This record gives sequence, C-alpha cells and structure tokens, in this order.
Amino acid sequence: MKTQLHLHQTHHTLADFDSIMKYAAENLQGESLHVFPELFLTGYPLQDLVLQRPFIEQYLSHQNDLHEWAKKMPKAAWRGLLGGLSFEMECQGTPKHIQNVIYEVIPGTGLKQLYTKRLLPNYDIFDEQKYFVPGNGNAFYEFNGELFGLQICEDMWASTFHQMDPCELMHTEVKEKNLKLSGIINLSASPFEAAKKKKRFERAKNISLLFGCPFIYVNRVGGEDEILFDGSSFIMAGSELVLELKTFENDSRCFELKSAQGQYDQKPVFRQENTWEGLFTPQIDNTQRPPVLNEWTDHECAEVLKGLQFGLQEYATKSGFKKFQIALSGGMDSALVLAIVKLSLKPGQSVEAIYMASQFSASASTELSVDMCHRLGIPLVHFPIKFLHAMVKNAFTQNFSEPFESLTDENVQSRLRGMLLYTRSNQTGSMVINTSNKSELAVGYSTQYGDSVGAISLLGDLYKTEVYRLASYINSHHGQMIPEGIIGRGPSAELRENQLDQDSLPPYIRLDAILEGILSYHFGKKQLLESGFSEEEVTKVLHLYLKSEYKRAQFCPILKVKAKSFGFGYRVPMSKNLNYQLN
Amino acid sequence: MKTQLHLHQTHHTLADFDSIMKYAAENLQGESLHVFPELFLTGYPLQDLVLQRPFIEQYLSHQNDLHEWAKKMPKAAWRGLLGGLSFEMECQGTPKHIQNVIYEVIPGTGLKQLYTKRLLPNYDIFDEQKYFVPGNGNAFYEFNGELFGLQICEDMWASTFHQMDPCELMHTEVKEKNLKLSGIINLSASPFEAAKKKKRFERAKNISLLFGCPFIYVNRVGGEDEILFDGSSFIMAGSELVLELKTFENDSRCFELKSAQGQYDQKPVFRQENTWEGLFTPQIDNTQRPPVLNEWTDHECAEVLKGLQFGLQEYATKSGFKKFQIALSGGMDSALVLAIVKLSLKPGQSVEAIYMASQFSASASTELSVDMCHRLGIPLVHFPIKFLHAMVKNAFTQNFSEPFESLTDENVQSRLRGMLLYTRSNQTGSMVINTSNKSELAVGYSTQYGDSVGAISLLGDLYKTEVYRLASYINSHHGQMIPEGIIGRGPSAELRENQLDQDSLPPYIRLDAILEGILSYHFGKKQLLESGFSEEEVTKVLHLYLKSEYKRAQFCPILKVKAKSFGFGYRVPMSKNLNYQLN
Repeated sequence: MKTQLHLHQTHHTLADFDSIMKYAAENLQGESLHVFPELFLTGYPLQDLVLQRPFIEQYLSHQNDLHEWAKKMPKAAWRGLLGGLSFEMECQGTPKHIQNVIYEVIPGTGLKQLYTKRLLPNYDIFDEQKYFVPGNGNAFYEFNGELFGLQICEDMWASTFHQMDPCELMHTEVKEKNLKLSGIINLSASPFEAAKKKKRFERAKNISLLFGCPFIYVNRVGGEDEILFDGSSFIMAGSELVLELKTFENDSRCFELKSAQGQYDQKPVFRQENTWEGLFTPQIDNTQRPPVLNEWTDHECAEVLKGLQFGLQEYATKSGFKKFQIALSGGMDSALVLAIVKLSLKPGQSVEAIYMASQFSASASTELSVDMCHRLGIPLVHFPIKFLHAMVKNAFTQNFSEPFESLTDENVQSRLRGMLLYTRSNQTGSMVINTSNKSELAVGYSTQYGDSVGAISLLGDLYKTEVYRLASYINSHHGQMIPEGIIGRGPSAELRENQLDQDSLPPYIRLDAILEGILSYHFGKKQLLESGFSEEEVTKVLHLYLKSEYKRAQFCPILKVKAKSFGFGYRVPMSKNLNYQLN
Repeated sequence: MKTQLHLHQTHHTLADFDSIMKYAAENLQGESLHVFPELFLTGYPLQDLVLQRPFIEQYLSHQNDLHEWAKKMPKAAWRGLLGGLSFEMECQGTPKHIQNVIYEVIPGTGLKQLYTKRLLPNYDIFDEQKYFVPGNGNAFYEFNGELFGLQICEDMWASTFHQMDPCELMHTEVKEKNLKLSGIINLSASPFEAAKKKKRFERAKNISLLFGCPFIYVNRVGGEDEILFDGSSFIMAGSELVLELKTFENDSRCFELKSAQGQYDQKPVFRQENTWEGLFTPQIDNTQRPPVLNEWTDHECAEVLKGLQFGLQEYATKSGFKKFQIALSGGMDSALVLAIVKLSLKPGQSVEAIYMASQFSASASTELSVDMCHRLGIPLVHFPIKFLHAMVKNAFTQNFSEPFESLTDENVQSRLRGMLLYTRSNQTGSMVINTSNKSELAVGYSTQYGDSVGAISLLGDLYKTEVYRLASYINSHHGQMIPEGIIGRGPSAELRENQLDQDSLPPYIRLDAILEGILSYHFGKKQLLESGFSEEEVTKVLHLYLKSEYKRAQFCPILKVKAKSFGFGYRVPMSKNLNYQLN
C-alpha cells in the first residue's frame, strides 16, 4: 500500500490569519496526508500575543472558518495535520489554559484536536511554560491504514534537564501494545543555528532507528525579530536522509511512503545525554590549549550568510523598509555588513553607505570605503564630522571647568555619527543596520547611542574572528566584494590617534574563546584559567564584560545564529555583586 | 507557652554572599525562630546567574560555610528558616535540576532542607520555571512545640491559571490529619506595585481565617534593575494586622506568638478567582463611560514616590554613581524627575540639570527651568542647541537632494540633546536619568537615541495623568518643589512652532485609559469601542502604539510600579501582521 505524505514548509507572518487560511484551503486536496508546521495557524513565537483579546478572537474566528470550510468539503481521501492553539477560557473571555496542539482537518467533518505538545521548552529564548500547559499522553494517528506517532518540536529533544522523554514514553507504549508504526511525524517551529541541521539529523536517525520507521520532520520558515526559522524539513529513514526541503524558503514536497515497518534494526531505548553544554553547540575546540573557536566550514559560512540575509529581509519587509543605510568606517565589520546587505537586496530595494570622517580617520579608511562602494555599485555619501566635533569639544572645554577626557571625546564622535546616520535615515526613509560584532558588544567596545545604534544587528552573534571568516568566505564565493586592504587592517575604532583594539584587548583569537566560555559555557575565572588562558587576560576580559552588561540592555535585536542566545535569551541581572565572578 | 518569632526583612545585593553570610551569623542567636526571605542566601531574581559556574561554586561554598558554622555552634533554642537554592548537578558540574527551597539552620547540626517551592510563577516578569523545578508536597515545621505550615511566596497566590492551590492542598492535609497549626510562614521575594499591600493583606486574612492561625509574611527589600522589592513584611492574625515592618527599608522585628490555635472562626476552603485581570490591579474605573484611570490616593502617591526614590538609589549605588544628570525642558516630566531625584539624594550625592534651548523653546520654558532649579538649589547649566541644529540642518539641505521633513528636523534636535546630555554626563561622571512617561512611550512620542536616552527610567510606568497626580502630591507634601507654571502648561515637545501634544492625541485622561486597556487588559479595538471610546481615538492610539513597539525594545530599564510590567515582563513580537488589532 502506498501512502502519500505532503510536507508543507510554510512561511507566514505572525497573526497573518487571512493568508494562512487561504494557504490551507488551497492546498488541502488530493489523496495525501498534508503535514504543516507547529502553530501553522498562528506563527511562532507568539509571546504575549496569545493573551491579547483581539488576537484570540481573530484566531478563534479564523479557526472556525477553517472548520466550517472543511466540514462543507465533500468526503475525500486527503487529511491535514496542522499546528494550532487550543484555548480554555475564563468566564470573562480571557484565557485560563492554552495548549499548543495538532489539529486534524477532515473533509466533510472539520477540525479535530489530536495531540497536545508534552515538552514545553522554557530555556534560553523559549518561554513556552509562560503561556502553554503541557499535554500528558502519546498520540497515534491512523491514515490510509498506516499508524503514525505524533510529536510537536521539543518532544523529540528530551534531555537530562527535562523531566521526561516523550520518545521514550511513546516507545514504551508501542512495545506494550505491540504497535506497528509507519512513521513518527514531528511538527516543528525550530530556530536556526549554525550546524543545527547536523544535530537534527543525528537525533532523527536515532528516533527512526529506535522505532524502526521513518522520522518525518516539518519545520516552519520565518524571521521573527531576532529568531530565524530555517525550514530544512526532511524525512529520515533509518540512517538514510530520503527527503530534504529547502533552507530559509517556503517549500512543499510530496513523498511516497513505502510500507516501512520493521525495515530498520531497532536499537535499545536511549536517553539523550543533553546537558546545557550539549544543548548549546560546542563551539570550542578543546584539543588546543588554550582552546580556540571551531572555525566555520564553507558549508556553515554559507548557511549563516543565508540566515543573516533572510533575517534582514524578514525584519525589513515586515517593518515596511525598502532602503538600507549603513555607516561605513573603512573597517571590517561595516564592510561585511554592507556586503551581506548587498547580497540580500531584492528588486526595488537599495542601500546607501555613509562615511563620516573625523580628524582621526586614516586616509586609508576613506580610500577603502570608496573602493568598496565602487566595487559594489553602492552610493556613498560623505559627511565629515570634524567641524561639528570641534565645535562640541570647544563648547564643553570653554564653558565647563571639568576635564574633557579622551573617552568623552571619543563618545562625542561616535554619538555625532549616530545622530547623523539617523538623520540621513530619516531623510531617505531607510532602515539603519547596526554594525557591531559580538566580541565588541561583550566587552563594551561600543558607544551607547553612537556606533551601537540600528534597527537590527547582523553581526551581534558573530565573534570578531567569525566576522573575518565570513568576510573571507564571501570574497571567495561571491567575487572580491570586500577590498583585501580592509581584511588586512588591524581593527581600530579610530576615535583617537593610532588607536588599535589589540593595544587594550587580548588577540581576538583568544578573546573570542574566552567570551564563548563565559557566554555559552557559563565559565568563570577558575574554569578559564584551567583551560589555559592567562590570569591577566581573563581578569581583563571578565572586568570589561561585567561592566558592559548595561549596554546590551538597550541594544537592538541581534539575529541569532548560535545555539545560546546573546539577545533576548541571555538574561543576566545588571545590579549584582561582581565579586563572585572576579574572585 | 510563648514562642518568639524574629522576622528579618533583609536588604542585600544579588550574589553578595559575604555580607549575606555575615548577617546570618550575627543574627542567628537567642531563643527565637528567625525567619528570612525567599532566596535570602542569594537575592532574587537571579535569572541566568543560577546557571553560571562561578555563581554556583561561590554559592555552594558559602552555603557550606554557613552549614559548618551552625554545626560548630553550641546547642541552643534558636532556629533559622531561610530561603536558598538546592542544586542537583550533572557529572560535568553544571546544574541538572535547581530548586527554590527553605533551609532550617540548627545550632550544633547545620543546614537542613525542609521545603521546596511548589508554585513557580512564570508570568509577566517571572521566569521561575525556566530555572527551577517545583516541589510536590506540603511541609510542616515544629518549633518550640508549635507546628507551622511553610510556604514560599507564590505558594500563597493560587489563582485560576495555576494548576493547583498549595493553600488548599495544605489545608486538606491539615484537616485529614487533624493538625493544629500555630501559623503559616511565608518566605517571600514579592515585587512592589502601587496598592500591592492591600492585595497581600486581603489574601493573608483569608489564609489566616482558613487555617485559624496567624499568617507570617517575610519579604525581601531590594531594587533589581526594574524590579522593586518593598519588604512590608507583616503578621496577620485573623482579620487583624498584628505586626507590620517598614516599606523599602531593611527591618528586623521580634514578635511573641500566643498559642493561637482555633482562635479565629474557620471559613470554608476557598479558591481565589484570580484571572489575568484580577492579578493585574484593576486600574480602570469602570463606573464612568468611557472609563478613566483610578486616581492614586495620597497614600498610594507616597508609596510610589518612595518606590521610585528607592529604585533610583538602588540602581545608582550598585552602578557606582554619586552624581545625576537630568535634561530639563521646562515641561512636566523632567520637572517631576528632577523633584524625585532631589528628594532621593543622600549625603555625598548631587544632581545637575542641563537646559538645552532650541529656536522653538518658549521663553517660559527657560524661566520655569531656572525657577525650579533656583527653588531646589540645583545647579543648572545651559547649552543652547540652536547653532548646532542650524548647522546640521543646513548641511543636510545643501548637500542632499532629498527633502528634510519636519519630523527629521525634530529628531535632529532631540538627538543633539541626547548627545550633549551624555557628553556632559561623561564629563562629570554622572548617571543620566530618563524623563519619558508611559503614555508617550506607548504611542512612540519620543525620539530613539534622543529624549529616550538614560540609564534608568523613573516615569516609564506612569501615565501622563499619573505624572501630574504625583507632581501635585509632591507639591502638597514636600513644599512647592515644582513651579505651578510647569504644572499648568499644555504638554509640548517644543520641536516645532506651537507644537502641542493635544493637537495630535486624544486628551490624556482618555489616552491613558485606552492605553491601560491595551497594555494591562489585553484589549483590542472591539473592547475599547464597547467601553465607550470613539472609533477615531481608538484607531489613532492603536496605530501609534503598534508602530512604536520597536522603540521600547531599545529603551532603558523602567522602574516597575504597576502589576502588569511595561518593561521586561511585557513581551510582544515586533514582526507581525497588525490587522488582527486594527480590524
């Protein structure tokens, strides 16, 4: 018997109910089992939206429309499995309990609730236990005489810090009842991170081998502020990847399922030993001492680049921007941002660079900026800040008796640039793209309201060494977009004479590894010293990191390309005693 | 038999382990049962700190020190009940499970874990399910022959959206086993909000009546970024408040407990009908149509004022600032901020105002600013922006062909002021206090990186009408700090000729009620129209609100004085389809 699965890797804006329902009605047909992502009916993540009365009313009304539509359909062989919400309401019309569920769409009948998500992720960027109550049973679903196990996203990811493992619980029931499964179907809304696919494949392989049937994974596509959903849906049959959908694009594919029971060797029940570190991609190469970050492969660079382009376009499109504005400095970060934006441009979109030279700007900075814009055909406007800077400085030194320190003077330049950049952005109706990287954000090497401004940050989750890696990847694979002169320069903020980052920081290769230890591995001084870093560099970095947390609190959304978030999912109180970190 | 309770309403910085242990060792003595707040041993909220290895190590080491200290103590009648953490570790030294618990300190024995918090709040600003696993049993504790029921904070607050009610569960066990309780002891870390005490007293009264014994409540004091803990510990015996500790100050009080069993009429088991609206103080007076905000009583004004002064000082002290910097505009918001800062000043601290007139500043603005600073004895520095503003405007209109709209021009002025304010702050080493209010934040009537700058926001949780109310309270009770001319003026940003807020917004009394409907009651257009607001004003406000969410994403911490947070606890995705709100 042949069973046709239709995987719908959809891409819809949160709460765009009309277009979601239209897609469902147009695609539910034929003889397939149509599978849609987790919370297909609303988008994900919803956060406080699920508590808003207008959201709830619109959702319920559209869900009811879909129910009525399906009910009126003639009986047919097709079925749909789609993710949605289930509300239990208070008498006052506010939600008492909300569940993250799978609905079956049955022609001639309507919607039928099949399964409630059991494992609600609540770590890092995830807050599902804030909004949802978990389900407490397995669900098996029969289609065309074949039996499938149902899951939603995190249900596949049991680890040691979860209280239970839905795969294990389902497997127990399968064994007890001697069920023959034709597949495990997982409806997902799973965020992107570099090399995440590998993790998914590995886990899918294990699940497929455990149950002796294919693992069918349908993930959504979307960029929701800082969180990116890559799609990359797939079917894993044993150790074999038998179907793979596109990355960062909506996609829709049919797959003919062969009667698959017992075709794989079943492995013993396993429990995934995922710890906090296991969960967050091990980015550190521990074979070296002191350790260094693992360098991205070309494939990972390509993925991250695609993710950044996608995230930028998602944010811009949803905010209604068609023009981008970038402050070029002649340095690596702004050059990479400009290259990524250029690569992401769609018809009707444009980008403009602005170069704001100060008295400390090297002539090479000007030349390299001009060179880069010339190569890429991007208009470059010049707005020197020398005169404004001098005026502000003079006014302060003349009118006030307090000293005007070098740091104050550096901040004036940076904030004047922030103001001018935004004035130009106001004038042209463009969206300002932030150019800070993760290394400088983490140690506070940026000026609040100065170079840290922007609507969204492309490089905020990339360490400086990763910025260089991605730049070199782009130059190899997309033509020489970035002048070699920029890649070869020592990083400098150019806010005073002969300023070089490396004068006050450890070399970036070590700085980045130390920061990864702190940010993703929760390391403190002791663990960093044990890893082989020097006391001097560790103390320096910890000091800088601890006193810079307030700057991140007002930073723009950072496109997340790592497992451990450096944005919304990174939550550290600013007001605290610092001795525990420094002793 | 007399039993002495000693309530320790402590005030410690997060992770300041040395001072915490010192306080414990100095105070655990005599013949009392010493009761300390929830997570006394660490402070609260901890967020990701509980995952950091150095935090865990330091905590465990200090906890062990306390254990060893108590073990070495001679046997004595005193006992301690204090809140702390309990870690179950992975083999790799990272936490597998963490619990929020009560430890008993026993002289001659050491620390003994008694109880694990059952109800982990996970709504609004709370994220406890992210870090902690709940306990699953009641705990009764015997001291001096008397039996007490133990709770931690939220355990007392069961409501319809929680899955269970620890009070109910404890009461069931008390009835089944026919226990005689001498008190319910609740260790809390409960955030402040206007009129919160009333809620606590009401609930405490019910619990005391239910169990027929006093309810003993010990709450911490502290300002943790935007969250304020007011202390205000108390003992409620039946309907009688028999002990009340200070608000926003550490305090320590002894209380002699009379054998209290059965002295109150027992009421039937109750279940609190707390909905999302019930949880969040009903701020709207629904007897009027359209509704208006309830006006704060003098007592509530005094509480809120004390909270703002406290929160400011907490943030400043923990960040190491002794000087404050405020941009005065001649308007209401900055005047109120200046008055609050002045009232909060401690010896060795100072505040400076800066007045940055533009071509649109009315002469009255200058005079009122001068008048106010003169009254309060606060130095006022002048830094006119006319010339800088003209230069920037000229440069843009001359060098670029695009139009230079009025809004662009307004933003230039605001951002120049932001830059100058921070330059002065850099020069004097002062902390900039933000002056935005909740009404203008919600509708986006502020300029990003302009007047929205600051280290912390005092008025970000106060609607404009509440700003006026608090100003008038201060003038009545703290001398005429704010010139009447400022209170009587129509609000204006003074960024163009004759600009008045009321030209483009509904009157503040209606705007504020509409916003409270949206922000705290999750209302949409339908509910607002049903409440009696006009279609025109509702649509206008919803549009402004929806398109301004991106500004809040980069705003500074807002001192929280309301039940529903407008800061970290208010989580709305920016990228979404807006039709569900506007249709």
